[in-house]
Amino acid sequence: MSVGTGKLIGVGVGPGDPDLLTLKAMRALGVADVISYFAKAGNASHARAIAAAHLRAGIAELPLFYPVTTELPKCSDGYRDAIADFYDGAAAKIAAHLKAGRMVVVLCEGDPLFYGSYMHLHARLAARFATEIVAGVTGMSGCWSAAGMPIAQGNDVFTVLPATLPEDELARRLADSDAAVVMKVGRHLPKLRRALQCSGRLDRAIYVERGTMADAKMVPLAAKTDDDAPYFAVVLVPGWEDRP
Amino acid sequence: MSVGTGKLIGVGVGPGDPDLLTLKAMRALGVADVISYFAKAGNASHARAIAAAHLRAGIAELPLFYPVTTELPKCSDGYRDAIADFYDGAAAKIAAHLKAGRMVVVLCEGDPLFYGSYMHLHARLAARFATEIVAGVTGMSGCWSAAGMPIAQGNDVFTVLPATLPEDELARRLADSDAAVVMKVGRHLPKLRRALQCSGRLDRAIYVERGTMADAKMVPLAAKTDDDAPYFAVVLVPGWEDRP
Repeated sequence: MSVGTGKLIGVGVGPGDPDLLTLKAMRALGVADVISYFAKAGNASHARAIAAAHLRAGIAELPLFYPVTTELPKCSDGYRDAIADFYDGAAAKIAAHLKAGRMVVVLCEGDPLFYGSYMHLHARLAARFATEIVAGVTGMSGCWSAAGMPIAQGNDVFTVLPATLPEDELARRLADSDAAVVMKVGRHLPKLRRALQCSGRLDRAIYVERGTMADAKMVPLAAKTDDDAPYFAVVLVPGWEDRP
Repeated sequence: MSVGTGKLIGVGVGPGDPDLLTLKAMRALGVADVISYFAKAGNASHARAIAAAHLRAGIAELPLFYPVTTELPKCSDGYRDAIADFYDGAAAKIAAHLKAGRMVVVLCEGDPLFYGSYMHLHARLAARFATEIVAGVTGMSGCWSAAGMPIAQGNDVFTVLPATLPEDELARRLADSDAAVVMKVGRHLPKLRRALQCSGRLDRAIYVERGTMADAKMVPLAAKTDDDAPYFAVVLVPGWEDRP
């Protein structure tokens, strides 16, 4: 690392409640030359909204808008190429700031290195520039804390599963775990419900929408009468079977 | 819940770096009448040390010292009874403060509801008293952040495993996960090493000791030449196989 080059800091801003920012995150925002964040084209960034109260007036901002790829199937080569090109371009924009000796903070919902978009920048830049990670409270911690639901204890095996898995694999993995969090629920809810039933886990499953927002919705999944769910809804399956 | 009763707040103080406390944790400490924390008999509490800079002068403290059970095998009925009695007694002491209308903050390393001792109090008190959870940065987030190691991405299946599992079960679960964190390594390291080898995961495993402390030790497990490991050491097995 040559002296005088900048630094890339991936800063976790937590699951949504601005009070779940860490002191370390606030300090990083206090010294940043540039803040950057991902957002859907035409939308505000959630991560920026969470951190808004702690941004210095007039700080330089580098929003990274995901390309509009609605015409491309998600598993196609065309989609993958478009996304890879987007991350390459985003990394190049950040690299230009780092080469100019600036400190760039990338705001990340939850924790930067746990299922976050920041990782795509980190993987492209960490070999060439100084980097630092400010760990954050994950979205799933925000959910089970808001629900007041102990999730895993003692020697529990805890698993994070994407709801995109095939039904039989979801059922097998749920039955094989003491505790689980299922992410990316969205249109997969009917399938997930069947997998939870099949694995004997439906009765303890909690459906959570907008986990740590003021308008959070939490309900035992068995009591949810429809199958409407946004992409970012999660289902918690608490472990600790021998709890008192 | 009757008006005028107290409130129990489980506060995550994060993985060790005092700067990884959240603003919400600091605010809870600012209004607490009593702080409580677990510690080994004769030892200082790690959670209290992490939060020390934010405690009000003269705040009432209720340390909860684990019983000395070294003469009892860990899986024996005697051990289980001694621990259950201890948690019952700890909950009764906190209940007395809550009945007197006090706000009791229990300081928790990491996140209160993720493998934390606080859960034993919560399970005993949440039905009778108002409770609140302040989510915290987990110990494992602290570890992979300090290592600068992206842990899971996209549709990865992520698993938390105790190293106490039998060798063949560890190997099976490691092979069946894209990403994993193995906890409670200690004397199980030789067995874990064999399970990682058998599951094809040894080459990417990172050994971490005292994750977010100033004297943290991180090394590829394959390069660690001895099998000495403290109980709280963890092994990270990063996923995201198609990273750029």
